[in-house]
Amino acid sequence: MAPPAAIEVLATSDTQGIVIPDALTVNGVSARRAKAGKLNGGTAAFTSSDFFKHPSSGKPKAKRWDNYLSLESKSRMPSSLKGAAKYLGKPGLISLGGGLPCAENFPIEELTIKVPSPPGFSEEETSKTGTTVTTGKYDVSNGSGAYDLSIALNYGLGVGSAQMIRFVTEHTEIVCNPPYEDWQCALSVGSTSSLEQAYRIFCERGDYVISEEYTFASAVETALPLGIKFVGVQVDSEGLLPNLIDEILTNWDATARKARKPRVLYTVPSGQNPTGATQGTARRQAIYKVAQKHDLYIFEDEPYYFLQMQPYTGPNSPPVPAPKTNEEFLKALIPTYLSMDTDGRVMRMDSFSKVIAPGTRVGWVTASEQIIERFVRHNECSNQNPSGISQLVLYKLLDETWGHHGYLQWLIHLRLEYTRRRDALLEACEKFLPKDIVSWNPPAAGMFLWMKLNHKLHPSQSTNKPLTIAEMEDQVFLAAVGNGVLISRGSWFTAEREGFEAHELFFRATFAAATEEKMAEAIYRFGDAVRACFGVSNGGGDVEA
Amino acid sequence: MAPPAAIEVLATSDTQGIVIPDALTVNGVSARRAKAGKLNGGTAAFTSSDFFKHPSSGKPKAKRWDNYLSLESKSRMPSSLKGAAKYLGKPGLISLGGGLPCAENFPIEELTIKVPSPPGFSEEETSKTGTTVTTGKYDVSNGSGAYDLSIALNYGLGVGSAQMIRFVTEHTEIVCNPPYEDWQCALSVGSTSSLEQAYRIFCERGDYVISEEYTFASAVETALPLGIKFVGVQVDSEGLLPNLIDEILTNWDATARKARKPRVLYTVPSGQNPTGATQGTARRQAIYKVAQKHDLYIFEDEPYYFLQMQPYTGPNSPPVPAPKTNEEFLKALIPTYLSMDTDGRVMRMDSFSKVIAPGTRVGWVTASEQIIERFVRHNECSNQNPSGISQLVLYKLLDETWGHHGYLQWLIHLRLEYTRRRDALLEACEKFLPKDIVSWNPPAAGMFLWMKLNHKLHPSQSTNKPLTIAEMEDQVFLAAVGNGVLISRGSWFTAEREGFEAHELFFRATFAAATEEKMAEAIYRFGDAVRACFGVSNGGGDVEA
Repeated sequence: MAPPAAIEVLATSDTQGIVIPDALTVNGVSARRAKAGKLNGGTAAFTSSDFFKHPSSGKPKAKRWDNYLSLESKSRMPSSLKGAAKYLGKPGLISLGGGLPCAENFPIEELTIKVPSPPGFSEEETSKTGTTVTTGKYDVSNGSGAYDLSIALNYGLGVGSAQMIRFVTEHTEIVCNPPYEDWQCALSVGSTSSLEQAYRIFCERGDYVISEEYTFASAVETALPLGIKFVGVQVDSEGLLPNLIDEILTNWDATARKARKPRVLYTVPSGQNPTGATQGTARRQAIYKVAQKHDLYIFEDEPYYFLQMQPYTGPNSPPVPAPKTNEEFLKALIPTYLSMDTDGRVMRMDSFSKVIAPGTRVGWVTASEQIIERFVRHNECSNQNPSGISQLVLYKLLDETWGHHGYLQWLIHLRLEYTRRRDALLEACEKFLPKDIVSWNPPAAGMFLWMKLNHKLHPSQSTNKPLTIAEMEDQVFLAAVGNGVLISRGSWFTAEREGFEAHELFFRATFAAATEEKMAEAIYRFGDAVRACFGVSNGGGDVEA
Repeated sequence: MAPPAAIEVLATSDTQGIVIPDALTVNGVSARRAKAGKLNGGTAAFTSSDFFKHPSSGKPKAKRWDNYLSLESKSRMPSSLKGAAKYLGKPGLISLGGGLPCAENFPIEELTIKVPSPPGFSEEETSKTGTTVTTGKYDVSNGSGAYDLSIALNYGLGVGSAQMIRFVTEHTEIVCNPPYEDWQCALSVGSTSSLEQAYRIFCERGDYVISEEYTFASAVETALPLGIKFVGVQVDSEGLLPNLIDEILTNWDATARKARKPRVLYTVPSGQNPTGATQGTARRQAIYKVAQKHDLYIFEDEPYYFLQMQPYTGPNSPPVPAPKTNEEFLKALIPTYLSMDTDGRVMRMDSFSKVIAPGTRVGWVTASEQIIERFVRHNECSNQNPSGISQLVLYKLLDETWGHHGYLQWLIHLRLEYTRRRDALLEACEKFLPKDIVSWNPPAAGMFLWMKLNHKLHPSQSTNKPLTIAEMEDQVFLAAVGNGVLISRGSWFTAEREGFEAHELFFRATFAAATEEKMAEAIYRFGDAVRACFGVSNGGGDVEA
């Protein structure tokens, strides 16, 4: 294969000479809100991130993606009825236009939640010091609140409620401060849905998408029925290797592949599922440069961004002190692709599933105005917008009770929770797994530990009937189930499905779900299963020890 | 055009000889539940309508639709990770498989709603006698409830929660009792989403779908980006004309149309949007027979099914007495397509948007097992399932507080509410509209009044520059806005968009949203605008009168 040309940053995306205003900080939120005046958050009120961002940022505008839009996405027209909304501002106008039901017929008069009061985030503390927040049906017209049941229970607009768009826009500016002017946010019903919609915006049947060689199974399974295949890129402990992406794209043979050169990179930069790999800052910068060189659009899927943990110090070392302030915490996070996206070539997918609860079915995407507009048009003709009840509960929790300060405090709490869980799993692995056979990298983020089994040590290798890696995987998986532990098979996560043949033997374990005791017991059982399959005796300690 | 052949029911779908067991009744629910035993409704518990239906119905099986499935739908594979769920039943097994977060990290400890207690459904009654229902995080493991926050806030399966699937399955059996064996329900995030998914299951780019000539604008706008066009069928006061559907299909010229013969009928049988038309029983039967003759699959979109109102008796007649019992109420409803669907050729789309609240973003579909399975596969790779918070709130309201009896009582209450609203709007129309120009049929269901303006009476018609209907529509619409009332234009609802030219002049008014006083004022203003455009003097009474 031809060696790829040097990677150069395009001159147009060089922001050296541009003065970017200071990013929004947690402490700056109230001043900005005061300046913006009362939130217009009525029933199906029109809203946009533009109402809540730094008003004139002086940043460059995003690149246009006209040639990247699919036929489906290009042909989405704004709703004709929604076009009539512009008349609704006329004073005294009575609308017999839209079929919005009347709030008096919504049979939910009050909704109350009990939530933790920072910094007392544990269940035990909440039972003693938790905050109880009640929402009525007409709090907004009564002047007793900024969001209420009459609004949340009615139809909303495709972008989401003004209340939640304000919160996620501010949060995104605080965390990412995107370096281009026309970025916006839109709510989604979770990142699985965001990703499906993103495929439908950017891809046609027959296209290839680039990703890690092992990736989120659902990302592949969502793409395949749409006729989209994956090109898997080999990874190291920091995930995607930029030079390999460059090589694949430089040498792309459209005729042989029967597909045009890929235009989309799908990546989970932090705590990648399943490998647990986290791309460092330099790695992200290098990948962004490759994306610029080949004009790749990046789907930045970041459910685990805030599950970045404390550095792993090993079983006998003292833990690294926790971030003391929000500023320290934010500084400890690896910069997002969105934060380095001078071109507007990133759709960042955020989700409340891992940081609040999956059952909210609320997430959001951030991208340039052009892409968000297409995304919202699709929302209007599919899920419409996330559950108003979910949006109300999130608003009452995140904005009204916690505020941005409290939310970041919660995220620090979660960081320490996941650090504790990961460390417990790693300790069990150190103790109970045969280290000559099983190896792993301590994950810096996410929920998953990716374990590599040295298939060369499998006893069948020295016979004249060596097992294939798929057969070994089957054997170990079933032995583990037989021992009473379910661990995910590596092959479930292959990016390239058709005719895939594994060269390495992997398993994935999560530290999100089980208690520390159960994790230890599970790893003990798994170690036992591995030893049995690899024909070595149990010398790995005792779970009671 | 050739006259179509006689419509005959296919012999295989003749159920005359089949003994169908009695339908489930409201009073039969508790016995059936008692027999089924404890609900298995844990975190992401597998569920199916089959667990809750009449166990052995003796009905025929649904037709297979293998040749109707789109390439996209056919290629959906079950999730590999979800396939591992079968091992989870093993006693003592510890799962480090799926990345489900631990409930202790969900920062919502309690959720309380205040809801009406039947029969006191009004807001005023609820403020005095409403029921307050609290859900904790661990009610299920504590034995104090059948659904809790630890379950609702976690991931669920694509079909929906066991708790809500049980409720909607029972409700569907009570209301529709589908006459084939293998029907099932799946939750959706609302009917707009159900319809998008249905298109993607049954249609390919280039296909035509049959519908009313004026139809739900969003149904068309959802279809167009997918490359799906509509063939509009002329309607009368009962909606779709079956002989015209037959004619269109019999004479379908695939070459001239550059499209295969349509396979899908999209219809809103009750209170059709925008025409307000409701198909009577005989009309539905005749349309079903045409569907059988041409092997059409029917999308039965029924958001307004329970907004069937009391018969309209005119301004000076006494109202028809309200249904006294649930049985009387159910008998007063026109049978659904699903209830006559001996072939399993109907996907019925139900929604809580109009009968509880749109902001729940919860609906459900009912169809044969084959189609539901495809629908659920798509859910898994898009919205996943409706908000768990919405599902929990609906369950607590509908199942735990009201039960099926209370829910039907609520639906009777809503019937009378909408009757009152419709009657108020019609009274205003009688009073304030120039009846020589504007005509209408009193709607029997739904939220909309469809008004036809006699364009032949427009003064421009007798000049040498007669306005087109589109121009008249524009004139009246803007005059109405000028007078302070927004009424939807008929042309927004045309099924056939490309090169459409209107032959009649229509406007749509809703009686769902405004108060009775505002509706009267709005119609007064509209009448004024019409008179101004049609050059007649204001002789229509006074809004104060």
